[in-house]
Amino acid sequence: MEKKKGSLLSFRPDIKVVDATIRDGGLVNDFRFTEDFIKDLYKSNVEAGIDYMEFGYKASKDIFDENEFGTWKFCDEDSIRNIVGDNDTDMKIAVMADVGRCDYKKDIISRSDSAIDLVRVATYINTIPAAIHMVEHCKNMGYETTINIMAISNAKESELDEALELIGQSPVDGIYLVDSYGSLYMEQIDELADKYLAMADKYDKFVGIHAHNNQQLAFANTIAALTYGVSYLDATVSGMGRGAGNCASEQLLSFLKNPKYDIIPILKFLEKHIVPLKEAGVTWGYNIPYLITGQMNRHPRSAIAATNEKRTDYLNFFLEMNDKD
Amino acid sequence: MEKKKGSLLSFRPDIKVVDATIRDGGLVNDFRFTEDFIKDLYKSNVEAGIDYMEFGYKASKDIFDENEFGTWKFCDEDSIRNIVGDNDTDMKIAVMADVGRCDYKKDIISRSDSAIDLVRVATYINTIPAAIHMVEHCKNMGYETTINIMAISNAKESELDEALELIGQSPVDGIYLVDSYGSLYMEQIDELADKYLAMADKYDKFVGIHAHNNQQLAFANTIAALTYGVSYLDATVSGMGRGAGNCASEQLLSFLKNPKYDIIPILKFLEKHIVPLKEAGVTWGYNIPYLITGQMNRHPRSAIAATNEKRTDYLNFFLEMNDKD
Repeated sequence: MEKKKGSLLSFRPDIKVVDATIRDGGLVNDFRFTEDFIKDLYKSNVEAGIDYMEFGYKASKDIFDENEFGTWKFCDEDSIRNIVGDNDTDMKIAVMADVGRCDYKKDIISRSDSAIDLVRVATYINTIPAAIHMVEHCKNMGYETTINIMAISNAKESELDEALELIGQSPVDGIYLVDSYGSLYMEQIDELADKYLAMADKYDKFVGIHAHNNQQLAFANTIAALTYGVSYLDATVSGMGRGAGNCASEQLLSFLKNPKYDIIPILKFLEKHIVPLKEAGVTWGYNIPYLITGQMNRHPRSAIAATNEKRTDYLNFFLEMNDKD
Repeated sequence: MEKKKGSLLSFRPDIKVVDATIRDGGLVNDFRFTEDFIKDLYKSNVEAGIDYMEFGYKASKDIFDENEFGTWKFCDEDSIRNIVGDNDTDMKIAVMADVGRCDYKKDIISRSDSAIDLVRVATYINTIPAAIHMVEHCKNMGYETTINIMAISNAKESELDEALELIGQSPVDGIYLVDSYGSLYMEQIDELADKYLAMADKYDKFVGIHAHNNQQLAFANTIAALTYGVSYLDATVSGMGRGAGNCASEQLLSFLKNPKYDIIPILKFLEKHIVPLKEAGVTWGYNIPYLITGQMNRHPRSAIAATNEKRTDYLNFFLEMNDKD
């Protein structure tokens, strides 16, 4: 793989920015956003030149209780239509569907009847065949699709090679490099991007990146991947997302040189919605427990618990994490 | 320049970690640290395997009023001796001396009578000849020396080439790549590291990196530079430093693979000293105003003022910064 390195003054027209605020941010507040928040986020994303906005999960109502989660855990057509109408904009609408947690045959209807353009299928490496089934259904329904392989920092290289080959032969449009635990350094992002892009070139697909900020590397890893040739870039406003959060939209837009992108609507949104949300105690972002789980390549759940308990006994936390599992 | 890329499992014996907490952190609190803080930091740095600890500035008492700053603005021999005694450890002691703000001929005495091992001379690109005079004095007094060229993101390439050549021909031991405004991306760090290392190889010197966190890239840029062959790495506990702060010691030590480094003493120090310091309202670290000045390649002073005023009118701040200068 040769690196598709642009210069810092030019821009690559293949770059697409995907706002994942509701979907990944929804993991912080159980998807309980106000309608005002979502409507303003939609408007500000359109104005900022964002290419895709992910509204949340298409979760099965047989598995998840509607009383325990807000609207965007389920992303009913009516809920999305209430925000976007006919979505007469250049921005496309995305949802995420988890393997094993989505009644896709029932809930993912024909694209011609839907507000949704892109279905992103999230899978672990051992459920790739099921993910491909879902992709085949979605492609038949007319959608753009991606497969997002989670927790790859724990996958064996040989398994990943096999998974990529299976995905390459599927009808999926793109594949995402996902750093679920925020454990990867830029060198590893480069190596993985090389692997993913080789498959993507062979089968004419694109590659995306979804980074987490456990080690304060979400933005760094995103621009490293972009520099390497990855083209779909996930970001969330203020980095809102599970645990240490994500690459922030305002960071990414301040880096990208395509004049279609505009940071001003995002700054307005931060002022109006994120500042009060944080003041109300909704919590995400880098701290020492996330650094520790990230560096140890662990699921962030223990660090989320430590953060909620406002623990500052960092040494005990470190020793606990060393002992566990 | 060929990259001196190690693997993520091995370590490079040329790597040295330089703790700059008192010096750069002193810019946050006018160098007013308790003796307990400094003694514990010294002890924890020794235990953590830190290679150099910078105690502060050697500032001229003719220029700066001793009543307006704490001890570590001046770093008298007695002050350092009070902490380190004969410094019977493997850790060396550093101070910073600014061109034009240090009575070096008077205040920098013979190394054999001093607790200090390394004098880091901070200079702008237009005062390199004065910096070299200072280095010559310090070398004659027996010290290790570095030249740290500040604000290079605003220097012309031709000026930087000329500066590096002058520095190469001087007796200095090392040269620092300094991202004063936190404006550089990893691609630019790579290009600058390439330039600095070419000079360093030609004249048998080493290269260091001092990064700032305005765009949450201090750690990323530090490990990018390290991967490229830079060997002296500045860090501060919890990233404590002017404005958005620095690469955090705990981040860097969690990355480095040399078994001499130990994160545990740093975690203890964070608990005992940094948590209460932050609770007392001493403020540093990434926020939106720093992102804006970093991305615009500006001095952080406006963002520091905005942070002190707790401003969240990000759009106004952005527009002000666009108007200024």
